[in-house]
Amino acid sequence: MLILSYTVEEYIDLAKSFHGVSAPGIVIGGFMVDRAVRDIPDGVLYDAICETRTCLPDAIQLLTPCTIGNGWLTVVHLGRFALTLYDKHTREGMRVFLDPAKLWSWPGIRNWFLKMKPKGEQDPDSLVREIVEAGERILGIQQVRIRPGLFEKKHKKSVDICPRCGEAYPAEDGRVCLACQGNSPYLDRP
Amino acid sequence: MLILSYTVEEYIDLAKSFHGVSAPGIVIGGFMVDRAVRDIPDGVLYDAICETRTCLPDAIQLLTPCTIGNGWLTVVHLGRFALTLYDKHTREGMRVFLDPAKLWSWPGIRNWFLKMKPKGEQDPDSLVREIVEAGERILGIQQVRIRPGLFEKKHKKSVDICPRCGEAYPAEDGRVCLACQGNSPYLDRP
Repeated sequence: MLILSYTVEEYIDLAKSFHGVSAPGIVIGGFMVDRAVRDIPDGVLYDAICETRTCLPDAIQLLTPCTIGNGWLTVVHLGRFALTLYDKHTREGMRVFLDPAKLWSWPGIRNWFLKMKPKGEQDPDSLVREIVEAGERILGIQQVRIRPGLFEKKHKKSVDICPRCGEAYPAEDGRVCLACQGNSPYLDRP
Repeated sequence: MLILSYTVEEYIDLAKSFHGVSAPGIVIGGFMVDRAVRDIPDGVLYDAICETRTCLPDAIQLLTPCTIGNGWLTVVHLGRFALTLYDKHTREGMRVFLDPAKLWSWPGIRNWFLKMKPKGEQDPDSLVREIVEAGERILGIQQVRIRPGLFEKKHKKSVDICPRCGEAYPAEDGRVCLACQGNSPYLDRP
């Protein structure tokens, strides 16, 4: 049983080194990415959408060329445990999700995913074993098309120096940068 | 010259394998993370803020324990080439930014960063060499405190099954999931 070119054990080690722990979500995410990649023809350049910010983005970043920093992965906060890989040109792709309807034979995964048991009462090792045993049997897959106009790459046209903070920012953001417009996360400076 | 425990060459190879190319931004990002980490006392658990979605998030994910999927890295879209590492408990930290005022002796970096020359007229190899030579001399550093209430971790309290799409979602999102509330990125389904 492989997750792309990795054995499950290799993938879990990789996930641990990047994500910090081999959280259940990132292990399931490995099977999800593997499932989606299988339906993307060789040589097709694809972008990724992740419908949750929890765990799953890291599986995508580890196993595909799509990262947050290179702009090929977009996280949309829909709260569903699902990912989509889609052809950059046709905008058609495959959406893979964890299907609650398929969890009835997997009580550990069900208790974890649907939060039916407090975390303290769950056994993390047996949960990961159950996830590996289940593999892709708990997943659903759908063909999707991305709405036109969504996630189109915008390239910064020109750069200005903000007269308030002195840093470079996209000129199209306005007379001062977005931080100096009141969006700074810091207490004591823009 | 090291970027944390990596030689510059090792870091550039690592960046290439994750990010796809050794883009100028991710190389500068290596020096930025290195600079910020140096001011965080050993053993302090920190979170990260990245003020741009371009390149820099990948340097943070590669070099620190903070990733998008584990929730320790938050990208705020301010369009400034800056990152902050801050103590999870005190919310105090170090902000490192690429300082335009320090670019006058580095014409290649200036032309790239301020978009003063079309990309086709820039030489990517000599740009990366200039970035490595400049190292942290082009960076500014500031102590910051994060506004209270920002980026606090929210734990999903309970999970519901969406009556429309049949998938699991955070119960607090409403009667149906956010995708079925009209936020779906797909043409043909919620």
